[in-house]
Amino acid sequence: MARPPEDHPAQVSGQPPADAPGQASAVEVIAAKRDGRELAADDIAGLIAGFAAGAVTDSQLAAFLMAGYLQGFSHAETWALTDAMVDSGRRLDLSGLRGPTADQLSTGGVSDATSLVVAPLAASLGMQVLMLSGRGLGHTGSTLDKLEAIPGLRTERTAEELLAQVDDLGVVIGAETADLVPADRAMYALRDATATVGNQSLMAASIMSRKLAAGVGRLVLDVKLGSGALLKDQASARALAALCVAIATRAGTSATALVTDMNQPLGTTIGNAIEVREAIAVLRGERGGRFRQLCLELTGRLAALSGTATDPAAGLHQAERALDGGEALELFARLVESQGGDPSVVDDPARLPLGPVVREVRADRAGWLGAMDTEALGLAGVHLGAGRRRADELIDPRVGIEMPVRLGDRVEVGLLVARIFASDPGSADVAAAAVRSALGWSDEPVIGPPLIYEAVE
Amino acid sequence: MARPPEDHPAQVSGQPPADAPGQASAVEVIAAKRDGRELAADDIAGLIAGFAAGAVTDSQLAAFLMAGYLQGFSHAETWALTDAMVDSGRRLDLSGLRGPTADQLSTGGVSDATSLVVAPLAASLGMQVLMLSGRGLGHTGSTLDKLEAIPGLRTERTAEELLAQVDDLGVVIGAETADLVPADRAMYALRDATATVGNQSLMAASIMSRKLAAGVGRLVLDVKLGSGALLKDQASARALAALCVAIATRAGTSATALVTDMNQPLGTTIGNAIEVREAIAVLRGERGGRFRQLCLELTGRLAALSGTATDPAAGLHQAERALDGGEALELFARLVESQGGDPSVVDDPARLPLGPVVREVRADRAGWLGAMDTEALGLAGVHLGAGRRRADELIDPRVGIEMPVRLGDRVEVGLLVARIFASDPGSADVAAAAVRSALGWSDEPVIGPPLIYEAVE
Repeated sequence: MARPPEDHPAQVSGQPPADAPGQASAVEVIAAKRDGRELAADDIAGLIAGFAAGAVTDSQLAAFLMAGYLQGFSHAETWALTDAMVDSGRRLDLSGLRGPTADQLSTGGVSDATSLVVAPLAASLGMQVLMLSGRGLGHTGSTLDKLEAIPGLRTERTAEELLAQVDDLGVVIGAETADLVPADRAMYALRDATATVGNQSLMAASIMSRKLAAGVGRLVLDVKLGSGALLKDQASARALAALCVAIATRAGTSATALVTDMNQPLGTTIGNAIEVREAIAVLRGERGGRFRQLCLELTGRLAALSGTATDPAAGLHQAERALDGGEALELFARLVESQGGDPSVVDDPARLPLGPVVREVRADRAGWLGAMDTEALGLAGVHLGAGRRRADELIDPRVGIEMPVRLGDRVEVGLLVARIFASDPGSADVAAAAVRSALGWSDEPVIGPPLIYEAVE
Repeated sequence: MARPPEDHPAQVSGQPPADAPGQASAVEVIAAKRDGRELAADDIAGLIAGFAAGAVTDSQLAAFLMAGYLQGFSHAETWALTDAMVDSGRRLDLSGLRGPTADQLSTGGVSDATSLVVAPLAASLGMQVLMLSGRGLGHTGSTLDKLEAIPGLRTERTAEELLAQVDDLGVVIGAETADLVPADRAMYALRDATATVGNQSLMAASIMSRKLAAGVGRLVLDVKLGSGALLKDQASARALAALCVAIATRAGTSATALVTDMNQPLGTTIGNAIEVREAIAVLRGERGGRFRQLCLELTGRLAALSGTATDPAAGLHQAERALDGGEALELFARLVESQGGDPSVVDDPARLPLGPVVREVRADRAGWLGAMDTEALGLAGVHLGAGRRRADELIDPRVGIEMPVRLGDRVEVGLLVARIFASDPGSADVAAAAVRSALGWSDEPVIGPPLIYEAVE
């Protein structure tokens, strides 16, 4: 004698429940991800297409993103998400360009103007460099804002103008056009507002969808790791790098990723005009150090991916020779001119004005520089007006921070550790205090971190 | 010699990172819940108040709800959430009413018109019954739609009208006013669209915020369990019941919850006019069975909470005597009249018209009725027009299903298992097929489930 269990619906020869016609498929997809089930590519494509078309609401996508943040996405799901995001907009057609197409991308660091050097340097090795980027928010600067510190220079261009300049010069640095992966723009704004930024799969899909839509054939990724980066541990950085490289490979794009240090600013300046000055100094061969070294490493990797060099070491030497030969500087000047900027800044970087109020920060104790809270340093720059917290904030290209010290430096009392260039005394004082409290001192010698932790291919 | 570890930011004598002024506190609250941290009551209050004021977006609340769905809420968080939701709107002041105030609430079942009996029955025992409910969506019917099947009857009333009728008659059944817990209405719509309905804490906060805002002093909860309920296992139903009772107790409301069976329709009818007919038959003492029994049990619990009876058993006997004495029927007739309806239906329920197209469903095999997919039966009613899938759909009060069989019944070939009352032949055929496939048969005797699984006090 059968008896239905008390805590389950009685089912002796049960049929499936009747369908609920008109049931929203978005809710089913969200529920499946919420319950940790792997989604079919079609379900993900439908959700993102629905979102792009307005049929799936922001709230539904936000719930989906949080469910995915907590339950995770498989590789197959991440690929499907990337494809669906690419499909939300236009794909550029680079097939008419001569030579191997190339791009470089950083996950975002402080004092990172490598794009301004890598783009012309890779072009000087024969690559066709199409470098598109977005506007930055938060503590890391934006390549576009830096370039626009050059009077007259425009980064907002049509796809046709971008392609025409690559065809002409071999290099362009521009803003992503609005028709390129519109779903990513909307999703990023949602993620920023809903605490779902820091998920590997969502990060990789966001980064890679934009690169795949731009259609570039070779890609070097600079995955930042440390106090100034979103990723604070090497395992996470390695995983993101591997995921991005896997997405690229699957789509037929050759890619290498370097996991690089962001426990201190990459260069010695934070700001816009001031970082352009530093990039020009590197292009002119007047500046060594970690910033120059990373530009050479990234370009060398691109040379190896493009077949220009037999391996990364050979690529590095090629890049070094090209930089020293001045070809990259010349190409940068032509890029500035072609994009409407004043090319005379290349010969005379002092034409780029710096903030009128100058504050010096000097060491008030002796010791070894053991820690730099690099995010705090970036935020000090934002406070000066070098970056944005919200999309509608204006940038002051003149303001910034010069920081000649590096982790591991021995510093005596009174040594200059930072020079602030501000628009007004109040913000200068705040930035000076922030810089001071971002530094940690040790009474014992400290060895600074390496520049490159590892390469992921 | 100290060396900063490679995978962590260098921190030798580190300071906390500089504050990010203007950082959205909603994002911080979402991130904390995402990371499984317990939130302070103030953080929850701020988030819900921000949502009610429009400063926290739907997307942010959706992300928060999904994070909470997956990470869970503590009891303290659930209390804070309930309080914050109550604070989004008006609280009714019942202090002017004579006698103990009482209410009954079901989590939603099929063929559940208990409110129509319990409200006048509890009032006949001297309680002041203020029963407010919302419009239903999905497979369970709504008390308001059922009452409105009585010609002329209005459930949309102002708070003042509601209180005046309780003061006059001792009983009112009305729609929740728009100023009562507006945050719950908005949150429920979001949860419905984002697959975050089925979380115990969110369910308890939703249910209890509305009851606490209504200010009633004694509450009996009917937590449904089974194939026609949201909760399918007894542990979940018990946990929800306990959580609701704990929230009530903390707020000074006396409450008991019964976990009751929803593996089959409670009564023998599904629809609006047809369920009112059945409720009137119970009030007239013409109908026994599980529906009548549950009405007596729920009312008995209220009597015990109110001090009218010494314990639930004594309350049950009181309720039984009152029902048999006809006082509840008389009060129901006065309620109908006071709310604008035609009280003659109480003497002649056949004045409530049923759908003109009638289909009989007869057993095509012999056996014991072993399973009823009660959600499917509810959806068959919705398909006929007795319920809504979307808020803007119209109800046809005449349509419904009569189902004389119960789990465990021995049925011979040709026995009537359902009678469909439809507005048109097409929907009648669909409903008949749905009813047929919702039934499961056994070749061995089956014992039907109990009516009440347990009481939670």
